[in-house]
Amino acid sequence: MPEYRALRQQYGMLELCQTPELAVQVTLQPVESIDVDAAILFSDLLLPLEPMGLTFDFVKGEGPQFDDPIRSAADVARLHPIDPEDALAYVLDTIRQLKTRLDVPLIGFVGAPFTLASYCIEGGPSKDFARTKAMMYAEPEAWHTLCSRLAEMAGRYLRAQIAAGVDAVQVFDSWVGQLGPADYREFALPHTRRVFEAIADLDAPSIHFGVGTAMLLEDMATAGSSVVGADWRTPLDRAWQLIGPDRGIQGNLDPTLLLGPWHRVRAAVEDVVARAAGRPGHIFNLGHGVLPMTSPEVVQRVARLVHQLTAWRSR
Amino acid sequence: MPEYRALRQQYGMLELCQTPELAVQVTLQPVESIDVDAAILFSDLLLPLEPMGLTFDFVKGEGPQFDDPIRSAADVARLHPIDPEDALAYVLDTIRQLKTRLDVPLIGFVGAPFTLASYCIEGGPSKDFARTKAMMYAEPEAWHTLCSRLAEMAGRYLRAQIAAGVDAVQVFDSWVGQLGPADYREFALPHTRRVFEAIADLDAPSIHFGVGTAMLLEDMATAGSSVVGADWRTPLDRAWQLIGPDRGIQGNLDPTLLLGPWHRVRAAVEDVVARAAGRPGHIFNLGHGVLPMTSPEVVQRVARLVHQLTAWRSR
Repeated sequence: MPEYRALRQQYGMLELCQTPELAVQVTLQPVESIDVDAAILFSDLLLPLEPMGLTFDFVKGEGPQFDDPIRSAADVARLHPIDPEDALAYVLDTIRQLKTRLDVPLIGFVGAPFTLASYCIEGGPSKDFARTKAMMYAEPEAWHTLCSRLAEMAGRYLRAQIAAGVDAVQVFDSWVGQLGPADYREFALPHTRRVFEAIADLDAPSIHFGVGTAMLLEDMATAGSSVVGADWRTPLDRAWQLIGPDRGIQGNLDPTLLLGPWHRVRAAVEDVVARAAGRPGHIFNLGHGVLPMTSPEVVQRVARLVHQLTAWRSR
Repeated sequence: MPEYRALRQQYGMLELCQTPELAVQVTLQPVESIDVDAAILFSDLLLPLEPMGLTFDFVKGEGPQFDDPIRSAADVARLHPIDPEDALAYVLDTIRQLKTRLDVPLIGFVGAPFTLASYCIEGGPSKDFARTKAMMYAEPEAWHTLCSRLAEMAGRYLRAQIAAGVDAVQVFDSWVGQLGPADYREFALPHTRRVFEAIADLDAPSIHFGVGTAMLLEDMATAGSSVVGADWRTPLDRAWQLIGPDRGIQGNLDPTLLLGPWHRVRAAVEDVVARAAGRPGHIFNLGHGVLPMTSPEVVQRVARLVHQLTAWRSR
């Protein structure tokens, strides 16, 4: 959104996230101009890593760059537990301020252990996650220790977000689609499961999302979330079949489609809605993040179209 | 391989590909030190694009960078057909020289229209292939013209490679896993099919490979190749089920696994072989390229282990 870009001219990514007044403003921007049914907290997956002991910065055009990535068991031992009420007070403060301003539900989020671990280990962008997987295979104990610490943090952090007022939470396992199913079950799933277990006694619905997960959806559905998100590569009806009828589903319009002409966008939105077939438990969403060159007007048209196509359900 | 790295210190990527004596040397390196059953031509997917009118260079650490990427129908019109015997004579010369030196079959290759088009349009590395997909959606005529020209080139180029002596060909649709199934059927499959049709009257077996294709394998199997390759994300038995019993299968050890300890590599190799279950038509391979930091000794151990595990079949 242009309003967001204007702010990013003035402030760095971390500064925006760490200043509640600004994070509130950015969270509200799409809610005010697009007919969405929920707000998603403006924040970043990596924020909890800083108080845990890993410093990083966002390098323009390249994403996060860590000063001292985790490369050994000794590096894992450097990480320490955090109290989110203290270390991430600015996020909780943002949530509390948002709750006084929003009339739609607010979704909080955290990174899943695998995805956070991959950032910690790669230390920057990666195509193949070779260092991450090399540690998994060669130093499984260090890997599991790292993921346990991240899972513990994630559970506490989500509890704190829910206590501060978020109405639902999302666990982003963005890069887990790098794993085949056997590796997923051994190295990622047990830790993600602990995150959902940590909030199981609370009343907040949870969403579990990853990219490139066609072969993982069945296993992801066992991690404990109320809803599983799918990217655009798996047709929604097929994805729902894979995760089973007991879970809700979120997805899954290809975000690049929003760069195309409206008649194509419309047909694709209709297709997603048709595949959901009116079953309760579908959260319409993109299959991954909005691309920077997307026109906010198109996103607004999509939101209106979805409401139109599903209006009979809310009547 | 260290021998390859030594050559890369002396020569650029394009120079290596375009000098038959050097390309022969690089092709032979793994055949001489690893017990592989076939050689794959040392070359690059992008070579045919240069004589078609697109100049590029390989930038260290970043991959190919095009001087004038394709961004419009007018840019597509700039591309001209080529005669591979003339424009890619150095590749055919490499093949002819190799055939006098090899005692295992030689595999030639070409990029599939979607993947080549994505390089032409992005002009450099891309995470989301946004420009490629934007052209597909917004300028379908320009897209289909571009892919038709690439398909025509690919068909002629493969015929020339087979005439020069390659025993089998591979069509790499490396990045096609970015598409959902409906887009694949509309924008990629018809063009790939033309490539296989162009060599259908010849006697060379063909392999069709892409990454992240869990949801595309069924459609890929209809493009006309004798063998379909799968990456490591789809268990081999599941992939074979998807492509059907009439096609051979190639794959699919996770290349990052080779960075792990031998007991893990062994177990994973055994798993792939067990999933093939002795059915004829399995070509054991990695699920994507070998990573630069991989030890050649591990690759050699894998080749020996595969031979050991499948020895009863060749007896």
